[in-house]
Amino acid sequence: MNVAVSHIAIKKVTADTVADVDDVLATEEPLEIRINYGKADARIQKSLSVTMRTPGADTELAIGFLFTEGIIKQYSDVKGAFTIPDNIVQVVLKEDVELDLAKLERHFYTTSSCGVCGKSSINAIKTVCDVAGGADTLQVSSTLIYKLPDMLRKQQAVFDTTGGLHASALFDEAGNLILLREDVGRHNALDKLIGAALEQNIVPLDKHILLLSGRASFELIQKAAMAGIKIVTAVGAPSSLAAQTAAEFGMTLIGFLRGERFNIYTGNQRVTI
Amino acid sequence: MNVAVSHIAIKKVTADTVADVDDVLATEEPLEIRINYGKADARIQKSLSVTMRTPGADTELAIGFLFTEGIIKQYSDVKGAFTIPDNIVQVVLKEDVELDLAKLERHFYTTSSCGVCGKSSINAIKTVCDVAGGADTLQVSSTLIYKLPDMLRKQQAVFDTTGGLHASALFDEAGNLILLREDVGRHNALDKLIGAALEQNIVPLDKHILLLSGRASFELIQKAAMAGIKIVTAVGAPSSLAAQTAAEFGMTLIGFLRGERFNIYTGNQRVTI
Repeated sequence: MNVAVSHIAIKKVTADTVADVDDVLATEEPLEIRINYGKADARIQKSLSVTMRTPGADTELAIGFLFTEGIIKQYSDVKGAFTIPDNIVQVVLKEDVELDLAKLERHFYTTSSCGVCGKSSINAIKTVCDVAGGADTLQVSSTLIYKLPDMLRKQQAVFDTTGGLHASALFDEAGNLILLREDVGRHNALDKLIGAALEQNIVPLDKHILLLSGRASFELIQKAAMAGIKIVTAVGAPSSLAAQTAAEFGMTLIGFLRGERFNIYTGNQRVTI
Repeated sequence: MNVAVSHIAIKKVTADTVADVDDVLATEEPLEIRINYGKADARIQKSLSVTMRTPGADTELAIGFLFTEGIIKQYSDVKGAFTIPDNIVQVVLKEDVELDLAKLERHFYTTSSCGVCGKSSINAIKTVCDVAGGADTLQVSSTLIYKLPDMLRKQQAVFDTTGGLHASALFDEAGNLILLREDVGRHNALDKLIGAALEQNIVPLDKHILLLSGRASFELIQKAAMAGIKIVTAVGAPSSLAAQTAAEFGMTLIGFLRGERFNIYTGNQRVTI
């Protein structure tokens, strides 16, 4: 059974016909993310966030969320992560992990489509994003970039049946699809992808290309920056702050990637034409 | 100057050409929502939320947010709302307004793409949504429904130039466009619309039709329910929980409204064909 889709009886109306059909929808359910941390004699359990997500890859989502929000610094901070019925993930941190409790509190301030941790300027974010990475030599060709959306669509397991999921896909420099994650929430799809990359020990992703199936918001760029991603491509439009943030972090941002055309908003030195 | 769009120099790449052009992007900036409440001798100021939004209609957004999240019960709870540079709205509540402080605290738990107030079942939401409304007699024809997206597109001031904004539109029973609000965040577009409807004293909106330019998530249905909306139509796909929630609240939910076709997910008794 595929928990990422739900079946529902609907009426399909056209100018000529009304038909009772069985339809599939992208499943949307709340997920509570809890952390368990502190010294052995004084462990603390804290509920950190509730997000509406599509079931599947829940521990990846939780770990990716903790990392992209700056709550954990590396995957080795995690002792274990497990799911609890219904719709809860508990992430157990190692004893020696020191949490920035002020940062935790700020989370209760913000919204998942925000990510600014209660502050309101790009400068504030820069202090959060301690972007890692090696020598910055990544370059990709426009012909390779053209091919990415097709490769995503061919692999998308759920999108075609429901039309309701956002996807994040990770490619290597040669254009091979490395990771693909989908969710009703675009930020969740990216957190799942980054959580999986952490588990595979391939972060920082400074030799990879990220493809977003929809629009590029500030929050997605911020999460990508946390994972060290240098090239972000999007099928849809970026927002103003997405473009500014990508420029601030020295990233390449490409939007409206459709057929054999795209726009480069910033960082064109990484694109050969 | 239109603050809803930002200009940026980009490179437009096609298979044959690379051009330097001036492009417009949907502006995305953080907005902090503060409330000021309590008795005259002990007023309390509280920062409630930071959301990433497109500037414009900020006080409507703040008031709509407070209402759809159940923090205020009616527009008359508001004494005044004003903007503070940069990107802050302060909503001053009347002295006699009693806030559910536990509900306020729960907000620090949740995310804006959630809206479940830290709980994880539709039953929990039903206690939040005290849906108002008169006799439930609203019916619309399929031919009227077909026309809604075109009317929205004709009115959309920003969408066509940036491709980056979500829209919420409100129509009356005769299909006249009453209100239209746009934002980089779909929940913000709906909060702005409901905030404007509150200011115009037309809530509950039980004789109106809501049109969403994209997908219908749980959160949007929950916000629409808070405003008493009975018919929600969406150009994109609904999620599973959106359909379930609309059914629970006795709403009509229509998705994939494109050309002369749409799907009815629930509440087909309000649609004449």
